[in-house]
Amino acid sequence: MGTSSDHKYEEAREVLAEFGVELERLSIDRVEIQADDPELIAEYSLKVLDVDIPILIEDAGLYIDKYYGFPGPYSSYALRTIDNEGILKLMEGETERGARYLSAVAFRDGDTSVTFTGEVGGRIAEEMRGTNGFGYDPIFMPEEGDGRTFGEMSAVEKARISHRARAFRKLGEWLEAD
Amino acid sequence: MGTSSDHKYEEAREVLAEFGVELERLSIDRVEIQADDPELIAEYSLKVLDVDIPILIEDAGLYIDKYYGFPGPYSSYALRTIDNEGILKLMEGETERGARYLSAVAFRDGDTSVTFTGEVGGRIAEEMRGTNGFGYDPIFMPEEGDGRTFGEMSAVEKARISHRARAFRKLGEWLEAD
Repeated sequence: MGTSSDHKYEEAREVLAEFGVELERLSIDRVEIQADDPELIAEYSLKVLDVDIPILIEDAGLYIDKYYGFPGPYSSYALRTIDNEGILKLMEGETERGARYLSAVAFRDGDTSVTFTGEVGGRIAEEMRGTNGFGYDPIFMPEEGDGRTFGEMSAVEKARISHRARAFRKLGEWLEAD
Repeated sequence: MGTSSDHKYEEAREVLAEFGVELERLSIDRVEIQADDPELIAEYSLKVLDVDIPILIEDAGLYIDKYYGFPGPYSSYALRTIDNEGILKLMEGETERGARYLSAVAFRDGDTSVTFTGEVGGRIAEEMRGTNGFGYDPIFMPEEGDGRTFGEMSAVEKARISHRARAFRKLGEWLEAD
């Protein structure tokens, strides 16, 4: 098991590799603002980052319809505090269980800046299922699936439809066409 | 009824008036970072604010022990999404109900920057009580009280013990001594 950021890096790296793009992880602090929208968060982090190489920042979150998008931009924080158990408790007895995972990738190369987003719709499961993936994966059932949670899917299955894979695939296509 | 920020402004204004300090509200956007600590959030907002007058920024939050400080720095967002009903649902059946309200006031005048904090301990009530105050006040019972929530107290009673009044009182004393 690695950290969330190991998982995210691995997912991104594998998608970009399909386009012949090599991704390397930097250990630098980023400024993360409060905003409802992962695009704004990733773009601000990138804007204030004084690094003179082609660089990208990804921001992602789980947005639950019933709770106006909560935990959304604060998904990591909610995971560290109320965790999946807290989300399931908030959803207890709720029939409206729709949710979306969103990812935004902000990329900069010299004077060129571009942002791509990816999304996957689904539902919050009644209980945690599966030990694959990370974060909210054990409670998220993608609608383009067979009722399994992301936690019950292999990395390859998840990468076909995940928000992160979709955002990074758009970046890969853009880089390839460039 | 006003907005949360009307309430906060009014609370701060009244405390500073005790020290002969006049507070005026500006309508400017601030950059709000993600951090666990209201001091860091207020200080960063102030640091990147290009305004050449004596200025302050306050950040505050409700920190629930059981949930490692949640909703903490994202208290406004949690209020807009899961609201007091969501917090009460998370606390259902929980006997560990301790919580703290924290406030941090970052102040700058020319080359001088200083930050003051205020805190009030208490418990999360079993249900919403009272219509005074704002935010989480109807579910927060301060320990230096008689079991009433902040929502059941007058503005004067709340100002004796509230986190915000305490932080602003420290600033008032500092300005007075200066």
